[in-house]
Amino acid sequence: MSLTTPYDPQNIFANIIRGEAPCYKLYEDEDVLAFLDLFPQSFGHTLVIPKRSAACNLLDVDTEALCKMMAVVQRLTRVIVDELQPDGVQVAQFNGAPAGQTVFHIHMHIVPRYAGQGMGVHAAQQADHAELEQLQKRLAQRIA
Amino acid sequence: MSLTTPYDPQNIFANIIRGEAPCYKLYEDEDVLAFLDLFPQSFGHTLVIPKRSAACNLLDVDTEALCKMMAVVQRLTRVIVDELQPDGVQVAQFNGAPAGQTVFHIHMHIVPRYAGQGMGVHAAQQADHAELEQLQKRLAQRIA
Repeated sequence: MSLTTPYDPQNIFANIIRGEAPCYKLYEDEDVLAFLDLFPQSFGHTLVIPKRSAACNLLDVDTEALCKMMAVVQRLTRVIVDELQPDGVQVAQFNGAPAGQTVFHIHMHIVPRYAGQGMGVHAAQQADHAELEQLQKRLAQRIA
Repeated sequence: MSLTTPYDPQNIFANIIRGEAPCYKLYEDEDVLAFLDLFPQSFGHTLVIPKRSAACNLLDVDTEALCKMMAVVQRLTRVIVDELQPDGVQVAQFNGAPAGQTVFHIHMHIVPRYAGQGMGVHAAQQADHAELEQLQKRLAQRIA
């Protein structure tokens, strides 16, 4: 997928936005949706996406949608730090397959980092669903 | 440096903002400054920082400053893609030393990725100054 590939409305995140695919939702408003990554690189790995901007990446997203997404990234990063107490947090956004992008609807990763723990390889192993469900409850409670 | 360490006004980016330290500047307005990373992880590695928010990281930056910074990240990513034609771009922001943060003034990394090229280790090797100067000219011209 190059940086100029057209948006595919059948990508998995578009399906999630339309409610056609499930997710471990943490937060949703009119413009932004946040949910747990199914293939987490660390405990608490969260994704934040714009709902109304059909954009593959940072090049084609509208700036207002980008700002709204970042405000939620900030809010959830604070929640994750409070609840999970990681030692650090990486925030990342990948554009194009050579940069590590695997779903071509723009998304921000929030990846908590814990001292002494390396980071998992993304998409290498799906998380345990019972663990994701419990984590969703912990974080969603604190957000609300 | 933990996630709650107080802001140190003597950090290198604060010095750059005050004009007390040099940088290969790409863009500046009232709120945001962008310049080339001296220890680039790839050709075109750029940093974008808020000028008026004395914030260590995403937890303590004010949301308006964050949005203004992201709008410039988007603008410069487009410029970098047009001028350098990378195959992908990684955008990243690190919070706390265990997450890879080395300067404790919030900053966004824009790291162009080129197919078949691995990424350098950050802060491992300083770039050639003649190369940075030439790159600065190419990008600054396109921004203006």
